[in-house]
Amino acid sequence: MFSDLPDFFPQPKSSSSPTPISAIGEAGLLQIVQRYCPAQVVGDDGAVLPAPEGQLVVSTDVLVEGVHFSDVTTPAHAVGWRAVAANLSDLAAMGSRPRALVVGLGLPGSTPVAWVEELYEGMRACCARWGAELVGGDLCRSPQRFVAITALGSVQPGRAIERRRAQPGDWLVVTGPHGDARAGLELLLHPEQGSSATAAQRQQLIRAHQYPRPRLDVLSLLEALPGPLRLAGMDTSDGLADALVQVCQSSGVAARIAAERIPISVALRQAFPAQALEWALYGGEDFELLLSAEVSVAKHLLEKLPGAAWIGEVTGWDPQGTVRLQDGQILSRQQAFQHF
Amino acid sequence: MFSDLPDFFPQPKSSSSPTPISAIGEAGLLQIVQRYCPAQVVGDDGAVLPAPEGQLVVSTDVLVEGVHFSDVTTPAHAVGWRAVAANLSDLAAMGSRPRALVVGLGLPGSTPVAWVEELYEGMRACCARWGAELVGGDLCRSPQRFVAITALGSVQPGRAIERRRAQPGDWLVVTGPHGDARAGLELLLHPEQGSSATAAQRQQLIRAHQYPRPRLDVLSLLEALPGPLRLAGMDTSDGLADALVQVCQSSGVAARIAAERIPISVALRQAFPAQALEWALYGGEDFELLLSAEVSVAKHLLEKLPGAAWIGEVTGWDPQGTVRLQDGQILSRQQAFQHF
Repeated sequence: MFSDLPDFFPQPKSSSSPTPISAIGEAGLLQIVQRYCPAQVVGDDGAVLPAPEGQLVVSTDVLVEGVHFSDVTTPAHAVGWRAVAANLSDLAAMGSRPRALVVGLGLPGSTPVAWVEELYEGMRACCARWGAELVGGDLCRSPQRFVAITALGSVQPGRAIERRRAQPGDWLVVTGPHGDARAGLELLLHPEQGSSATAAQRQQLIRAHQYPRPRLDVLSLLEALPGPLRLAGMDTSDGLADALVQVCQSSGVAARIAAERIPISVALRQAFPAQALEWALYGGEDFELLLSAEVSVAKHLLEKLPGAAWIGEVTGWDPQGTVRLQDGQILSRQQAFQHF
Repeated sequence: MFSDLPDFFPQPKSSSSPTPISAIGEAGLLQIVQRYCPAQVVGDDGAVLPAPEGQLVVSTDVLVEGVHFSDVTTPAHAVGWRAVAANLSDLAAMGSRPRALVVGLGLPGSTPVAWVEELYEGMRACCARWGAELVGGDLCRSPQRFVAITALGSVQPGRAIERRRAQPGDWLVVTGPHGDARAGLELLLHPEQGSSATAAQRQQLIRAHQYPRPRLDVLSLLEALPGPLRLAGMDTSDGLADALVQVCQSSGVAARIAAERIPISVALRQAFPAQALEWALYGGEDFELLLSAEVSVAKHLLEKLPGAAWIGEVTGWDPQGTVRLQDGQILSRQQAFQHF
């Protein structure tokens, strides 16, 4: 399923080019990063863009070294890819098409120039794959590396996907498997784990962590459906359980989930059979979409989207937003990833 | 001239509320920051905005603790104000009206909750003063505090101010005094300095550092002028010398500057007579605009904008973008602030 992703793990060029950015200064660094922006937007205080035809969607995501990535788990190319993918996933989750991204970058002076080049190569690769464009940013010195990306998208009025629009009778659908990214992180941190999986399966899990795919492909399917569309949903980057509870709480509905229907890849089941369901629910970073839709729309998605699955339904109105598993257990966000 | 700014320096509330954000967790912190966003944009993966009528302008700026601010020089309220003002200044420099801002915030778990509240109060105060709206953001854990803001503005086609549009014969105009912010920083770091100034003058300089004003007021003057407007310029946040050289290099023109015409406040001359001109040229953080305009437009600005001043003119085409002072000395960005 990852055949359209780069089929290599870029080798850090640091050995051949250990120049730190303090040696080339801000002007040198600017020359490098401006290669990745269209010429007409370089050099002003802001970028001027043609205004979108529909509504404007804006989303922002921050990745911090030591928190969201490290040289151990994520080469610079993958940091760039993931940072862009996280933002494009937010746009996909709003039902909007990406238009432009700006990048705020904090770096210590000791950062290798090659790291920055690879970072931008990764951002460019992800942008190019989904038709987005880097249009500017800000560079600054920081004791810690971080990447703060803001993405702009557009959506036709009445077609935005919002968390608070789920209604009783809706089917709950996920666009793909969950838990792979969490397993990939585990393999990067503890390579001795998951030895029951094949080399190809292990690589699939690692790739899911390093090169996640925003589900912008879902938008074409939705755009083919006529009229205003009442769709609720969000992406599952903070975990599927978190997304389920948030959509139900925002909409004031209760839902019932069939945990055994949550799609889990063969690779994950093979590598980590004991943890597979827990990571599918709470692992996070999968960048799939959870959607709540009328049955006819849900069936359309299930038919057209390989890998999508029905995982439950909205059972009634409920100000608490209670999500129950088949056995009656109430699903909580508590096991979900907490940032602080 | 700062009478429309808050006439107090907010006292940190940390003593009465020393709760660290690790004690209230991400959910608690989200509840606090969401108070500062309009209800309809809270809780989705992105914010949906009405699309601007003209062209879209996007700008991004990052402030890092220990690099752009510290508890010694900048209380949280002023950090919020300055972070927003820096972005609004970029929009003003593009000739665009602010519409919305998103905030990416990195914080250690030990950060006092009160610090975050004051930060958002400062951002809200600056937004409210100039009609901008906070519409979302991202929170994450980070060893270092940082604030990454992206601002969206709109501008009518043909009315954007761009660096590369200066032409021979243009007058060079600045919208206000320079050097005050640098002097204010000096007084905060070394309170024993500048003792030849009065208490009110010292406070004016400190306020220029902590509560800079984006020059969005200039836009109303420009909007009153008919037709497409060929205006070049940028803001002087990296220093007036830097702005002069950048505009001339981007436009491929040479300019001559009358250094003695650069507006310098009485407070700065009184507090730091020996450093006044150097800080006016290289101090940075003043958030005024440098504009290059046809004589008639420049005269209109000089007449209508109290504090604005003619400082020189564009003398011819020049791929090097040479900027000379009256004595023939070539102005360089070298003394300007370098981020790395």
